[in-house]
Amino acid sequence: MKRIEIIQNVLEANETVASRNQQLLDKHRVFAINIMSAPGAGKTSLILQTLTRLKGNLNTAIIEGDVASIVDAEKVQSKATAVVQINTGNMPESCSLIAAMIESALKDLPLDDIDLLLIENVGNLICPSEFTLGEHRRVVISSLPEGDDKPTKYPLIFVDADVVIINKMDLFPHVDFDITAFHRSVKGLNPKANVFEVSCKTGEGMEKWYSWVLEQVKTNATRL
Amino acid sequence: MKRIEIIQNVLEANETVASRNQQLLDKHRVFAINIMSAPGAGKTSLILQTLTRLKGNLNTAIIEGDVASIVDAEKVQSKATAVVQINTGNMPESCSLIAAMIESALKDLPLDDIDLLLIENVGNLICPSEFTLGEHRRVVISSLPEGDDKPTKYPLIFVDADVVIINKMDLFPHVDFDITAFHRSVKGLNPKANVFEVSCKTGEGMEKWYSWVLEQVKTNATRL
Repeated sequence: MKRIEIIQNVLEANETVASRNQQLLDKHRVFAINIMSAPGAGKTSLILQTLTRLKGNLNTAIIEGDVASIVDAEKVQSKATAVVQINTGNMPESCSLIAAMIESALKDLPLDDIDLLLIENVGNLICPSEFTLGEHRRVVISSLPEGDDKPTKYPLIFVDADVVIINKMDLFPHVDFDITAFHRSVKGLNPKANVFEVSCKTGEGMEKWYSWVLEQVKTNATRL
Repeated sequence: MKRIEIIQNVLEANETVASRNQQLLDKHRVFAINIMSAPGAGKTSLILQTLTRLKGNLNTAIIEGDVASIVDAEKVQSKATAVVQINTGNMPESCSLIAAMIESALKDLPLDDIDLLLIENVGNLICPSEFTLGEHRRVVISSLPEGDDKPTKYPLIFVDADVVIINKMDLFPHVDFDITAFHRSVKGLNPKANVFEVSCKTGEGMEKWYSWVLEQVKTNATRL
């Protein structure tokens, strides 16, 4: 199966570049988080709130991954230390950021001035799970209107997540979402994941997320 | 660029199989609609409502595409003439249904007993736009909580759509969604698309969709 072999080679090559990215980030003491979700689950909102809340504590850079457009980069521009936009285009293999895109973006970031790098992946619950970028932690956002069956239907992205964020809790009274069933599914796939229930709109539950980020950055700095 | 060439070959091979699928469907007078959206936008809900409403008018079969699980197939089982579940797995090229999967599924369907085939694609706004399946029409669902910027951020899937459905209109009072901006973006990409504002939950606006489906099936039968 030639095609399968090529895919395998692509994934292995990606791992090599991802390791190189992490070494570079470690050298400059930058902690990187890869933020993944379906379209419209709230990646940009999470990043905007995090930038605002942690401005006094951390210098944060953003890499924005999108198929097309620069709307997200424009939104975060004024709040981040630096922003790089990556447009992946419309080819089938462009349904995710890959490590080589991050390697290129890192050249445009002032790494010595940055503590935290938030990478907003392309809106997709499938492809990004296969491609590591060199990040230290992986975050998946699932939002209430998407329904409680997403871990069952898109398991791999939840299996590898360090954090699962349940966003849009403000819509809880207006949608059918069995939160116990959701927690149970995530626990079945990934018992170690931290799960935070939040609303990026109202700020509900966000302090636990901010504390987790600060703690991770601190622990990483101690390690290096 | 060996990799690009291979992708090109894959897309061309897919077109060939898709044409063959359409010929087979036409031979048996089956009208096929490919339903695409982000995860949780309401593909299964649209299918369930459509099955219920059109039960007296049309014999409808469903092909369910999912990365994993059979939850959607179970939901539609009792209402459809026939159901086939396709699980695409977790490889990067499995982020969409492809024509070869449909070719295989068609062998398991009683084509002479079917008027309408609804194909629920994998929840993804990127990959499915590249792979035609042999369908007669393409539908994209966008739901209010995803935000009004989806056509700008995932243009290709909107460019090729015959219908754009704006779902979850019942959440309009609770989310920030500029519906004029959304319509403007769709019109800019695809002036010919039919756009229906609906709530699969309350039934609001669904009659226009049902009429469109009935009209399309009728017109197709006349053509053959």
